[in-house]
Parts: sequence; C-alpha cells; structure tokens
Amino acid sequence: MSIRYPNGKVYQASTTPKKEMTTKKISYSNRGMTLEEDLNETNSYYLERQIAVIHKKPTPVQIVNVDYPSRSAAVIKEAYFKQASTTDYNGIYRGRYIDFEAKETKNTTSFPLQNFHQHQISHMRHVLDQEGICFVILRFSITDEVYYLEASHLLEFWDRLLNGGRKSITKKEIEEYGHKILIGYQPRIPYISILDKLYF
Amino acid sequence: MSIRYPNGKVYQASTTPKKEMTTKKISYSNRGMTLEEDLNETNSYYLERQIAVIHKKPTPVQIVNVDYPSRSAAVIKEAYFKQASTTDYNGIYRGRYIDFEAKETKNTTSFPLQNFHQHQISHMRHVLDQEGICFVILRFSITDEVYYLEASHLLEFWDRLLNGGRKSITKKEIEEYGHKILIGYQPRIPYISILDKLYF
Repeated sequence: MSIRYPNGKVYQASTTPKKEMTTKKISYSNRGMTLEEDLNETNSYYLERQIAVIHKKPTPVQIVNVDYPSRSAAVIKEAYFKQASTTDYNGIYRGRYIDFEAKETKNTTSFPLQNFHQHQISHMRHVLDQEGICFVILRFSITDEVYYLEASHLLEFWDRLLNGGRKSITKKEIEEYGHKILIGYQPRIPYISILDKLYF
Repeated sequence: MSIRYPNGKVYQASTTPKKEMTTKKISYSNRGMTLEEDLNETNSYYLERQIAVIHKKPTPVQIVNVDYPSRSAAVIKEAYFKQASTTDYNGIYRGRYIDFEAKETKNTTSFPLQNFHQHQISHMRHVLDQEGICFVILRFSITDEVYYLEASHLLEFWDRLLNGGRKSITKKEIEEYGHKILIGYQPRIPYISILDKLYF
C-alpha cells in the first residue's frame, strides 16, 4: 500500500539533489499559502458546489497611463495602489449579504488593530446598519490558527483604541469573543460552518 | 434676487473667452456624464444618507511589474486589464443582497447583448440561485433613457441568443419587461425606487 499525503499524491522517495531539497523547505504550519490564497480556494469551493457566492474584490488601482500597441492588448504603463473603501470580500449566502475582511499577523499573543483602516471600519458599521452579516477572519500565521470574529466585536476593540486603550486585540480576547475555524483540506477555511452556527 | 442653477451656484454672466465656450459644449441630453459616473454619485448619495451600501468593484488588473522608488509610493510599471468574473456593482439594501451590471449603448432601437459576457451571465445565475436581487441598468445614451431590467429577463434573452435568436434586446422588449428609471438631480439614477416597488 502506498502512503498518501493529505493532498492525495502518492509518497515517493525523493530523488531531488540535496541542494534543492534544502532550499525548497516545506512549511507544514501554513503550507506556504497566504490567507488570501486559502480564502480564494475556499470561495471557489463554495461557488462550484453552489453553497455560496463570495468573491474577493480586485485590488483598487489608479490607472494613469495606458499604452495601446497595435493589434494587441492594452498595457498599463503607470498606475498606483489606492486605499480600499470597503472590505475585501463580499457576496451572498442563503439570501443574506456577507461581508468580511481577512488579515494575518506574525504576532503570537495579540492581533494589531493597525491591520485595519478607518475606511474599512466605517464600511463595517454601514453593513451592520443594513443588517448584513459582517466579520473578520484573523490568522496567526506562526501557529496557523484562524479565527472568525464578528465585526460588532472588532468595532468595540476599535473604539477602545480610539478611547486611548490598547492598540491590539489580545489572543485571549479573540479566543473568548471569536470562533476558531478548523483548517481543513477542502474547503481550507470553512467559515460558512460558523455562519451556519450563528445565523441559520 | 440672484438666479440659481440646480447645483445651487449663483448664475453669473460668463466672462469666458469665446473660444473656450465653443469647445466646452454642454450636452443637456446626458450632461457629459458616463453611466458609471452617474451611478457612483447615486451610490454615494445612498451611502451618505444610510439608505443602502452599494459599491462599484475596482477594475480587475493583473499586476506584472511594480517599482518601489525609495521614500515614495509604489509605482505599477506593467499591468494588464483582466476580464471581470462578476458584475460591477454589489452591496446591501434593507438586509437584501443587491447585485447589478450597468451598460450603455449608442443604439436607439435595441440593446446589443454583446455588452455582457458569459462570466457575468453565470454570476447572475448564481446570485439568483442564492436568492439575491440581481438586475441590469441599461442606458440608451443618445436619448438618455435608463431602464432597470431584472436579471431573470436578461437571462431569457441570453438563452434566446444561444438558441440562435437575435443578438440584442429590442427597445420594445425593454419597455415591456423593464422599468424606466426617471433620471433625477439627486440621486441621478434612483434605482432603489424600483427595488422598493418590486421587493419591499
């Protein structure tokens, strides 16, 4: 019987030369995937199975100069990153509007609030006012722990900061007010399971 | 008493040199605004008054090369336009998920279906399956007439095209199945009034 990795591939004794093996070190803690990549895969999984329609918004870019070479595609020659006026992810699940932001930190004991900016916080308030489902997905990348935290709680921690309080949410607070998302193989970050528990 | 324009500014006899006056011709039919600009203003109006939270998604761009000059902002030096995988506008109104695409044509008797692409059509089907509110806003730019058409009808016209039928929706069909949006001053394209009539 052959041994299979979690990705379904059969284990094969490596024939890779030593040099390459040492440079191509695999991190089992987060498999080298960014939170964004994991969420894109998760959202594709939900979309393909007609579970939910959630997309990441494109990165906002201010386009200044575009070149149109004849008979070929337009090339953007000068552009600048713009600050987003909303969160990165939104869509629909079982008739409800879903809206969230995802952030990761290399800290291990707290999550810095500087990961969010005022525009996003205001957007979250607007969404809650319209009775949307709004939350953040927070990853502690060193330990690969992922939490779901309701926007209402994030807003409380943000207000605490504005009132001169601490500039981060402690890990303990996230454990208390948030919900741990158990990282899976498919989907990788099954946040819908938390929504099912809280709203449906 | 001074006469005021609808924008609140006081009328003043022009002192502009003649040349500039002739080149800066004002079109009263569409005030020189694109449908996108009108919708952005409309969405800002709805957002500021806490009526609805609807945003246009940023144009999707594939970034290839970014320059980081020291002490200044990153400059994107090479990028390409990507095809959108969803419609351009989405958000929330009174708890419901809202999703739409906006297109204009210079035709006067029909609206060409080539204004839409397969990705957007598929996205609309997914949204309807999740019980979202999905529609298109169609503008005939020559006459500055704007219509709201439910995605369910657009999908029927799309299927007719796929079955060998006509490549456009006739103006008469749009008048029959759609809802005319009366262009206003504030907001410019009050599509929420159609939603109120149909859903709330």
